[in-house]
Amino acid sequence: YTMTLGVEPTRPATDYGYIRRGAALPEAEGAFAVARFVEKPDAEGAAALIADSALWNSGYFLFRADLMLAELEAHAPEVLSAARAALDNATTDLDFVRLDAAAFAKAPKISIDYAVMERTTRAGVLPVSFPWSDVGTWDAVWQVLPQDEAGNALRGRVEVLGTTNSLVHSEGEGLTTVVGLDGVVVVATPDAVLVTSKAQSGRVKELVGVLRARAHPEADAHRRMYRPWGWYQRVDIGERFQVKRIMVTPGGRLSLQKHHHRAEHWVVVKGTAEVTLNDDVVLVHENEAVYLPIGSMHRLTNPGKIPLELIEVQVGSYTGEDDIIRVEDIYGRSSG
Amino acid sequence: YTMTLGVEPTRPATDYGYIRRGAALPEAEGAFAVARFVEKPDAEGAAALIADSALWNSGYFLFRADLMLAELEAHAPEVLSAARAALDNATTDLDFVRLDAAAFAKAPKISIDYAVMERTTRAGVLPVSFPWSDVGTWDAVWQVLPQDEAGNALRGRVEVLGTTNSLVHSEGEGLTTVVGLDGVVVVATPDAVLVTSKAQSGRVKELVGVLRARAHPEADAHRRMYRPWGWYQRVDIGERFQVKRIMVTPGGRLSLQKHHHRAEHWVVVKGTAEVTLNDDVVLVHENEAVYLPIGSMHRLTNPGKIPLELIEVQVGSYTGEDDIIRVEDIYGRSSG
Repeated sequence: YTMTLGVEPTRPATDYGYIRRGAALPEAEGAFAVARFVEKPDAEGAAALIADSALWNSGYFLFRADLMLAELEAHAPEVLSAARAALDNATTDLDFVRLDAAAFAKAPKISIDYAVMERTTRAGVLPVSFPWSDVGTWDAVWQVLPQDEAGNALRGRVEVLGTTNSLVHSEGEGLTTVVGLDGVVVVATPDAVLVTSKAQSGRVKELVGVLRARAHPEADAHRRMYRPWGWYQRVDIGERFQVKRIMVTPGGRLSLQKHHHRAEHWVVVKGTAEVTLNDDVVLVHENEAVYLPIGSMHRLTNPGKIPLELIEVQVGSYTGEDDIIRVEDIYGRSSG
Repeated sequence: YTMTLGVEPTRPATDYGYIRRGAALPEAEGAFAVARFVEKPDAEGAAALIADSALWNSGYFLFRADLMLAELEAHAPEVLSAARAALDNATTDLDFVRLDAAAFAKAPKISIDYAVMERTTRAGVLPVSFPWSDVGTWDAVWQVLPQDEAGNALRGRVEVLGTTNSLVHSEGEGLTTVVGLDGVVVVATPDAVLVTSKAQSGRVKELVGVLRARAHPEADAHRRMYRPWGWYQRVDIGERFQVKRIMVTPGGRLSLQKHHHRAEHWVVVKGTAEVTLNDDVVLVHENEAVYLPIGSMHRLTNPGKIPLELIEVQVGSYTGEDDIIRVEDIYGRSSG
């Protein structure tokens, strides 16, 4: 059997899916066959389902690999073959296994619920009763957080005045303030600010669609960009310059590269850098700097045992990410 | 006469002060003596005042200097004497005239309305009828801004969804989003985020009091700190480092200083810097860098004709503003 955890309902929720129980499973004490999966009901339907001992569908599945492979073979063979091809053609770099993107993209876009669980005759459900929420909206986040006497859940650098039943989450150095509102959600990060009501916080997915349609980079990217070798983050930008903070993990190595439009100054603020600059290789320690002229071939490596952090000041007529000419990259990238 | 501009009311506003007209002034065509200043009335009082041809008190005053000096002598001599002492003991640096702080602090805290206008017999009012708002709340800001068909005034990098009659103002690089709200005000800057309703936006002053009581620096300071020589702004901070962007106006000169706990790397990204480092003076041009070891005596000057901008990377065990030992300062400061 493929087992799901079915949560004992504590209220007639209309934002969860339900599972009707079938016969008790003789093989597993306390477990039942799945009679039927039921989509999000209305309030009346939810009450009726609960009266009939239905359970919330937690979305947790437990199964043996050989059984799931057989189920996929039987009910969703296109998913299985695409996954197999993506794995067969995968490449590895350091800690990453990179599935073959083209093969993976051929897999039908379908959830395991629809592809297997609603089709198989071997679906089971184990009733559980621990406190559970799928935390699928900011309203749900507010519900699971500790609240003060005004019903506010406040996190980070936040001050509120005359505000009740609200979630205010502030990341980074900035201060976030709310005056005279009830039931709002404010999430402020260095990338972006979201203001909504708890009642409407389910529309955030719709908002992301709008951001993507309008080509806002925030729809898909964070300010801190993770790479196989660590991460970088822009901290300032001006007319002819840009400043980044770069972290390279121990053993991490950026591509051998050059730029047509910018020179770079690196100041090491933590750890030790091994810098290749044309034909030379030098070690640059904490509080030391190195200059990389326009057009110079260079490479940054962390040869040490602790993370390397440096401040990069780019100066030039163009500082976009696409002015990187990669000559050699241990991670197999040709761009980006 | 000391004249005020009295705005012809366009609605029975309860958030403005009013002026009752007295007799026409024979000396000035169309002008009237002030019969009485009336504080913010309730809705009924406002309607009665308007029926009686009262005017909004715009807070604009026009007067001859010798007349105002005589009025102050007669009605508020402590204000006059404190102002005179502050001016007599003022100091100058570059474009600034710095009033004597101690003398100025002795002036009673009273507005010109109460100190003079309500006491003198020589107050006049000139009715005017141009569109006017004192823009004293974010609600008033929203009212004077152009609004889209949903009643939203959106400025900067902003996206809204299902949002109406709202003001959303976003400064800097971040994106600000609002979902499913009506009549809210969102102001997002790199320093801080304010979320309120138009109805409650008058409470921002109260909020500032709370911020001050809780010692939040945002109550009084901006991220960009202005100085006699230009400005600086922190762009990043870490465990043992800090990054600042510094602008020095042409001819501007920082104090001769040193630090006990940090070294500094300066990368010039615009203009030319004259850097004094111990016994040497060097010119540092765009895309050049200079290193200032811990304990070194240094000074930064902009000898050029255009603003100088540089990125300062501080590295050390402590990077607070109070690790500046000023040896010589053309602006007469001993600290800060």
